[in-house]
Amino acid sequence: MTTENKVRSGTNDAPLVLYGYWRSSAAYRVRLALNLKGLDYEQRFVHLVRDGGQQHGAEYRALNPHGRVPTLLHGERVLTQSPAILEYLEEVFPEPALLPGDPDGRARVRALGAVIACDIHPLNNLQVLKYLTGTLGVDEQARLEWYRHWVANGLDAFEALLAESDETGKFCHGNSPSLADCCLLPQVYNARRFDCDESRWANIRRICTALESIPAVDRAIPENQPDAE
Amino acid sequence: MTTENKVRSGTNDAPLVLYGYWRSSAAYRVRLALNLKGLDYEQRFVHLVRDGGQQHGAEYRALNPHGRVPTLLHGERVLTQSPAILEYLEEVFPEPALLPGDPDGRARVRALGAVIACDIHPLNNLQVLKYLTGTLGVDEQARLEWYRHWVANGLDAFEALLAESDETGKFCHGNSPSLADCCLLPQVYNARRFDCDESRWANIRRICTALESIPAVDRAIPENQPDAE
Repeated sequence: MTTENKVRSGTNDAPLVLYGYWRSSAAYRVRLALNLKGLDYEQRFVHLVRDGGQQHGAEYRALNPHGRVPTLLHGERVLTQSPAILEYLEEVFPEPALLPGDPDGRARVRALGAVIACDIHPLNNLQVLKYLTGTLGVDEQARLEWYRHWVANGLDAFEALLAESDETGKFCHGNSPSLADCCLLPQVYNARRFDCDESRWANIRRICTALESIPAVDRAIPENQPDAE
Repeated sequence: MTTENKVRSGTNDAPLVLYGYWRSSAAYRVRLALNLKGLDYEQRFVHLVRDGGQQHGAEYRALNPHGRVPTLLHGERVLTQSPAILEYLEEVFPEPALLPGDPDGRARVRALGAVIACDIHPLNNLQVLKYLTGTLGVDEQARLEWYRHWVANGLDAFEALLAESDETGKFCHGNSPSLADCCLLPQVYNARRFDCDESRWANIRRICTALESIPAVDRAIPENQPDAE
């Protein structure tokens, strides 16, 4: 990897500040993109459980009316929603690229990312799990089955998309990490936390192993964050 | 509007074929973008209920391993996941633009779109509603409350993002429709089907009324599709 220790300058040289939480899958995606692009950033921590969820507090809501992490500040700009933040980083800090140069490849990477960001993760986030147990009175076992069901449903599709394409390389698309990889690794981290059976996802496991060997990726993993518990 | 009846030519002049379903919110987003860009396309219909859901059949799964609509064919290219399809259309058919020219504006439009595509719609799609009633045995009233809860949670945030920004214009971002509008109108259509209280979303209601007056938008609404029931 040649993405480390790049120095940025010019009009984009405003400070980057990431509001996140070590275990937030969406914040993890953004840390991966920032690190792979070799960008320096300050982290500020929003504890998703403490104080009834600091993301719901007035201070954080002023930045992010939806009360979700992450939020990225770039100078005066306030950026929300991880898919939009990833695209912004790609546009403003294009090197190293996390999207391919051709529209077909870009569509493939974005579709892979959306399987996770639109079809798996939204069903398994903290607010949804709370609604299941709190409002619907779902028991622990049924909650776990719900979690694993949507992970399996989505990652089976993700694995099929990897297996059928000769665009799949060392990583999800070719031989350098892309935004699809930035979405995949956090989802697999969650799948492992919830003991999902990953044995049938051969391409996914192989790609995650390759990703984990990259120092910029290692620095983004939840356990290596200052707020990890 | 000057987006009607544009003639496309050159390398991008391959036929466009949209696999969708009249009431699919994600297919509706893509119809809006296609129509606003004045593109001709053939529609093929995937009935989400008939035959146990035609999206699960082998023929459709060969195109879309996840068994979700829409899928867009552009010549030989097979495009899945509505957010990725919208970005593809914007890249390949850039005029009229559905994303602003500046990275900040693009990030804002994408974030608005993601509130819907990542935070509301995934919780209320057909597969999820089936899991609630089938696997979890949730009753009709609780299912309806679930639906309305996630619509309100997301559209409250969407309305706040519109209300706080002077970038909001006749439409979600300025005075021409964007990808955010392509996501908003189908979500509001769903909210109305499920009798969600939209009285407090003044900006959203105003923008939807403006959108509905555009002929290209009118041609995209579910009731105007050949497979509408």
